[in-house]
Amino acid sequence: MNLNDTIVAISTPAGSGAIAVIRMSGAGCVPFLESRFSSRSGKSPVVPGRVMLGYISEGDEVIDEVLVTWFKGPHSYTGDDVAEISCHGSVYIQNRLLQVAIASGIRLAEPGEFTFRAFMNGRMDLAQAEGVADLIASATGYQHRFALKQMRGGISGKLKELRGKLVNFASLLELELDFSQEDVEFADRGELISLLETIASELQRLSDTFRQGNALKQGIPVTIAGRPNSGKSTLLNALLQEERAIVSEIPGTTRDAIEDTLVISGIPFRFIDTAGLRAEPEIIEAMGIEKTWEKISQAAIILYVFDTSESTIDAVKEELAELSLKMKEVMSEEELAGKKVIIVGNKIDRLMEFPHHFRDCMELEVVFISAKRHENMQLLTDALLHNTDTSLLQEELVITSLRHYEALQAALKAISDAHTAMIHNLPADLVATDIRETLYHIGLITGEISTDELLGNIFGRFCIGK
Amino acid sequence: MNLNDTIVAISTPAGSGAIAVIRMSGAGCVPFLESRFSSRSGKSPVVPGRVMLGYISEGDEVIDEVLVTWFKGPHSYTGDDVAEISCHGSVYIQNRLLQVAIASGIRLAEPGEFTFRAFMNGRMDLAQAEGVADLIASATGYQHRFALKQMRGGISGKLKELRGKLVNFASLLELELDFSQEDVEFADRGELISLLETIASELQRLSDTFRQGNALKQGIPVTIAGRPNSGKSTLLNALLQEERAIVSEIPGTTRDAIEDTLVISGIPFRFIDTAGLRAEPEIIEAMGIEKTWEKISQAAIILYVFDTSESTIDAVKEELAELSLKMKEVMSEEELAGKKVIIVGNKIDRLMEFPHHFRDCMELEVVFISAKRHENMQLLTDALLHNTDTSLLQEELVITSLRHYEALQAALKAISDAHTAMIHNLPADLVATDIRETLYHIGLITGEISTDELLGNIFGRFCIGK
Repeated sequence: MNLNDTIVAISTPAGSGAIAVIRMSGAGCVPFLESRFSSRSGKSPVVPGRVMLGYISEGDEVIDEVLVTWFKGPHSYTGDDVAEISCHGSVYIQNRLLQVAIASGIRLAEPGEFTFRAFMNGRMDLAQAEGVADLIASATGYQHRFALKQMRGGISGKLKELRGKLVNFASLLELELDFSQEDVEFADRGELISLLETIASELQRLSDTFRQGNALKQGIPVTIAGRPNSGKSTLLNALLQEERAIVSEIPGTTRDAIEDTLVISGIPFRFIDTAGLRAEPEIIEAMGIEKTWEKISQAAIILYVFDTSESTIDAVKEELAELSLKMKEVMSEEELAGKKVIIVGNKIDRLMEFPHHFRDCMELEVVFISAKRHENMQLLTDALLHNTDTSLLQEELVITSLRHYEALQAALKAISDAHTAMIHNLPADLVATDIRETLYHIGLITGEISTDELLGNIFGRFCIGK
Repeated sequence: MNLNDTIVAISTPAGSGAIAVIRMSGAGCVPFLESRFSSRSGKSPVVPGRVMLGYISEGDEVIDEVLVTWFKGPHSYTGDDVAEISCHGSVYIQNRLLQVAIASGIRLAEPGEFTFRAFMNGRMDLAQAEGVADLIASATGYQHRFALKQMRGGISGKLKELRGKLVNFASLLELELDFSQEDVEFADRGELISLLETIASELQRLSDTFRQGNALKQGIPVTIAGRPNSGKSTLLNALLQEERAIVSEIPGTTRDAIEDTLVISGIPFRFIDTAGLRAEPEIIEAMGIEKTWEKISQAAIILYVFDTSESTIDAVKEELAELSLKMKEVMSEEELAGKKVIIVGNKIDRLMEFPHHFRDCMELEVVFISAKRHENMQLLTDALLHNTDTSLLQEELVITSLRHYEALQAALKAISDAHTAMIHNLPADLVATDIRETLYHIGLITGEISTDELLGNIFGRFCIGK
């Protein structure tokens, strides 16, 4: 992307409204305003940071009465001169103003190009720029909170601090090298190793926030499983209907017809309906069931549904034993540890009285509902919240980007190599290589190190006008 | 509507975008900013007309990084204090900021309430306020141009001038009364009558612009008529398809399934397809044909379609004679005068050679097309433009509102009564009553005279946030 020309875009949402904002950035802003804008008060010069009322004209024709603000670079969003034109919000006027700008040699901005310029001009680093995009895409409270922190430089600040410590470590290492043959001791290996461990554990802590950070961004995966006809799909519909008013659309989650996202108390849950688990399936059915096990192993929470009106206690116990056995079979112990199972006794509307007998002889807690009649659904959503690890919601810094997570994993690998080299007393230049590798991966997150492809990927996902 | 509390609304189009603008008006703006906004530079006091970068917070939680502009009343859109908060454009953030405002005692604005306050505070008159709504609704160049002129006070200025002349007339009339028995002569009846005629003719000229002003706003009505199977519907589809890219949606015009609007060179045409005109119809068909005549009498342009591959010259001549006869029958001479008929020879794709024989022996010009194959459609749109009276497009002031037209008609009636009274030498107080009546109707347009119902009607049609 060219950085030297002037770009323009409609920055407000598409469509018609009371007002709309056209934004431009580059050296062409002032000439544009000088030639196309006349202030109503007649005072002509455009003053930075002041809002001016006036008219944008093309030749003799007044296009609109507008409010114009000029931000003089570098004190602007992009770091270059920026003009914001607040106009009447008809689609016609928005397009005419764009046309006037284009006719005067200003070019339509690509998606994310304003923020790209801000990044290139050092107004924000790459993690902050990604925070801007996340902020605009945020649909729930937690997504918004983590994106805002990232945009305001939370993650970047932490990484800068760790980077400083690593640079400090490298200089101590060098000192140790220089003076290793002498009597003076600036730092012994033990101290250096301990410093490395501190840095590694901080990187690890940041990296650990990703699993839940990602879940809070993408939605916590909840798999609904159970025997055929236990009422799984009815349950999914009841959950979604019940809370339809606060369902938020998170892009990409609804591609799969059997997945749907629902926000409960600000936390998005991604529900996955599955094929019924039959004891002795036919061949084709068995393939569906394999898929079910896959979905179960991907879930953070499993809603295991049984039919209170048809099942016996023994049958349910057998099902749960089978579930437990199969889960141990397909998952590692670590995977298992994070999983929560909520047992749902469905179809209580078909019973004469409350199914105490199930509750009394089960070790696990059961939520009894009627999905069909929307009975006790609140108990179920409470159980979902109760089984969600919200400890991270209190964390100051949470990694929500897969790209950041992967860079952190690579940094952790490199710092662990450095640690091993230190422990085995390998030459300091080998350790230094690993430290450089660590710094490289941290630099990828903040954008000190970047490639055109990486930048293209990141800014291409922005909306136009930002 | 309460005028003393503080109101808030999202003023940018609905949905998600790079940025959105929340607007508030009233005495609560400054307390809101003082308690919820902190500038990033730490400089606290909000300065009118200056854009400030900072944060809106609720308690400890930062909601968003925003740009805030405070317009100190009366130098603001509404005349009261106004604050504009430019925030990141996620729907979540927009709603959160609204919630924060509401939690601090600010109320959601009704549609048009900002402009209503501007009107009540004397920042604009009623015709200008209506111009704002028209400007936002404008979908074509001419609609935009007339709305902008109206918003900027064009119509209002003209009416103010006429009002001044009427008041001047009234005072001359009074002078004439006072001194009628004496020798002194300030103005003779003849001069007064001539002044009245000047004013009346100016009112008439303004009123005359409505017919086309309205057509340019609503779309110029074009009725497609002809024998059954002459290809009328194919023609409508071809016209709409041909220009689909520049079709603009004008609210209310598509309620009728057989009507559709198409913008050609900035001028909206509203096409009306009709039932075929058969020579000897059945009873039920006859009702459809009655409807067709009604549509023909409402049209500004009639596209009369015949089938070149099936019709003989004599048959077409007969059809046109019938059309002409029937039009004279159902319309007044005045109505007839404004109508244009374009004869369309359709289905030329079925002919071996160009149908010169039709052209040569018809007095009227014929446009030969193939609607099916989209042949010569450009000739047809040229003919439509050619048959549209665009003289008004050069007019400075054009009335586009039915409300204004009706008030002008009433003013014209009253001034004509005054004129009659003057000519018949009726007592001056009778003339004065008619002049007051004229002033009253002019005052209705600019809002010097208004009722709650009228204001409710006008501002209720605005979008929220304006």
